Amino acid sequence: MNWPEKVTIKEVGPRDGLQNEKVIIPTQRKIDWINQLSDTGLSYIEATSFVHPKWIPQLSDAVEVAKGINRNPDITYAALVPNQRGLESALEADIDEISVFMSSSETHNLKNINKTISDTFPVLKEVIDSAARSRKSVRGYVSTVFGCPYEGEVSIEQVFKVCDQLFEYGINELSLGDTIGVASPRQVALFLEQAVKRYDIDRIALHFHDTRGMALANVLKSLDYGIKTFDSALGGLGGCPYAPGASGNVATDDLIHMLHNMGIHTGIDQGKLIGAASMMQRFLEKPLPSHQMAVYNAQ
Amino acid sequence: MNWPEKVTIKEVGPRDGLQNEKVIIPTQRKIDWINQLSDTGLSYIEATSFVHPKWIPQLSDAVEVAKGINRNPDITYAALVPNQRGLESALEADIDEISVFMSSSETHNLKNINKTISDTFPVLKEVIDSAARSRKSVRGYVSTVFGCPYEGEVSIEQVFKVCDQLFEYGINELSLGDTIGVASPRQVALFLEQAVKRYDIDRIALHFHDTRGMALANVLKSLDYGIKTFDSALGGLGGCPYAPGASGNVATDDLIHMLHNMGIHTGIDQGKLIGAASMMQRFLEKPLPSHQMAVYNAQ
Repeated sequence: MNWPEKVTIKEVGPRDGLQNEKVIIPTQRKIDWINQLSDTGLSYIEATSFVHPKWIPQLSDAVEVAKGINRNPDITYAALVPNQRGLESALEADIDEISVFMSSSETHNLKNINKTISDTFPVLKEVIDSAARSRKSVRGYVSTVFGCPYEGEVSIEQVFKVCDQLFEYGINELSLGDTIGVASPRQVALFLEQAVKRYDIDRIALHFHDTRGMALANVLKSLDYGIKTFDSALGGLGGCPYAPGASGNVATDDLIHMLHNMGIHTGIDQGKLIGAASMMQRFLEKPLPSHQMAVYNAQ
Repeated sequence: MNWPEKVTIKEVGPRDGLQNEKVIIPTQRKIDWINQLSDTGLSYIEATSFVHPKWIPQLSDAVEVAKGINRNPDITYAALVPNQRGLESALEADIDEISVFMSSSETHNLKNINKTISDTFPVLKEVIDSAARSRKSVRGYVSTVFGCPYEGEVSIEQVFKVCDQLFEYGINELSLGDTIGVASPRQVALFLEQAVKRYDIDRIALHFHDTRGMALANVLKSLDYGIKTFDSALGGLGGCPYAPGASGNVATDDLIHMLHNMGIHTGIDQGKLIGAASMMQRFLEKPLPSHQMAVYNAQ
């Protein structure tokens, strides 16, 4: 049980969660919710996305949200940025950290970004360089690390090729995404066995989706390898675009609950987190799918 | 990754699952369902319970179910038995293996069995002795191993006291139950660290509930300790009596999915298992809560 004593949770609910919710949440409610999230002890919140509204209508109010929230100085507020134009909006809204994204599998990258992997690199390089000039750190999301909805398994070499390039461009942290929730603990172990030797472990985050129910088992296996940063979405908000009704991001409240019960600190207040999840349940007028919320809603 | 190559799943859906479902399933449908379960590759099915119908109305047709199902000679059909009278009914129905049960915490035992722990021992001893005379093996369920809804944490010493006694009486296998789904992987590790030294690992099964979402992570940790037998209920049937709406037994289909994706054999056909879960969904006229069924239902 050589687990880290402290783990950092990066809350992606306002972005990765909401972008998969059909019901459009009014801007002021998003602001209220992020403000409530800011009061839970979270140190990192991905607040929105500057991807063109045509692709993610839910987050078309990115500038208003970014400018409207109260900035807690202890929290990093991040936003997803696809290209130079998105970066300019993010900089204008004074986002603390920029997230860029691409896939490790060619077909998913093509379908998601409309570019080949090699054509995506220069676009991201430009964003990363510009962000650096504006003294903003950049986080790199790599999707389909453990499997692609179109290609199936992705080779570790292929994943490393993409990750290596992003690190070379100067990203601050790499978020390794199990986009469709297919990773098993064995696959995570085989991957991390190599990854922790290749990269600085302090710059690696794991981003699990719970589609098949294995997310917390995969977190546990990652902890065995010393991983200290995980992405999650409060309440399991969002679901899976590839299987409507199935789970999306691992739920922050489920993740925190397990970590705390393992004696691992996160700095986050579970009660306040449940309060923030309740607020979103009221906005969406439906129960959120996490296990903690099921127990809470039953009480 | 020193995991077992093969794991045995003990399907408890027809008993632990159904006993927590409010809608009464007609006897013939239970029989049809168990017959379908018998065709999935499962080697062990807990088919019903001979607890007095006053306590579990859903399973008041235990004799009819036990006599009505087709017996696959490769499968052990078990049933829960609370006392000598229940044993007689089970023997009359020619059940293959008898399950006895008690709690490791005094208050849960008192509320569940209406006896103190010390008063429960002679009742179970009588059942185990009688079963032996009829050449039936006995499985012992110990509840609240990782926490009690009334007393909180239960000491390992207290759990061992109960387990030791049951082994001394001659049970064939011990099923260690996380009755309310509170165990964390750390707690499982601390417990198994001692348990695998104290008992024959081939005689220990883990019985996790997924109330807080940690069941598969706890299975993973148990595999690290070489545990090779797990109880589960297909589709996550049943839910939690202490928190209606929350998860009950870990879902067989979720468990199998993870094990197979880790390269661990179970002998069970995932497709047939999903077929059997679909049948129960039709009987209950509601979706079953497992992750695999959520994905299946979305397709």
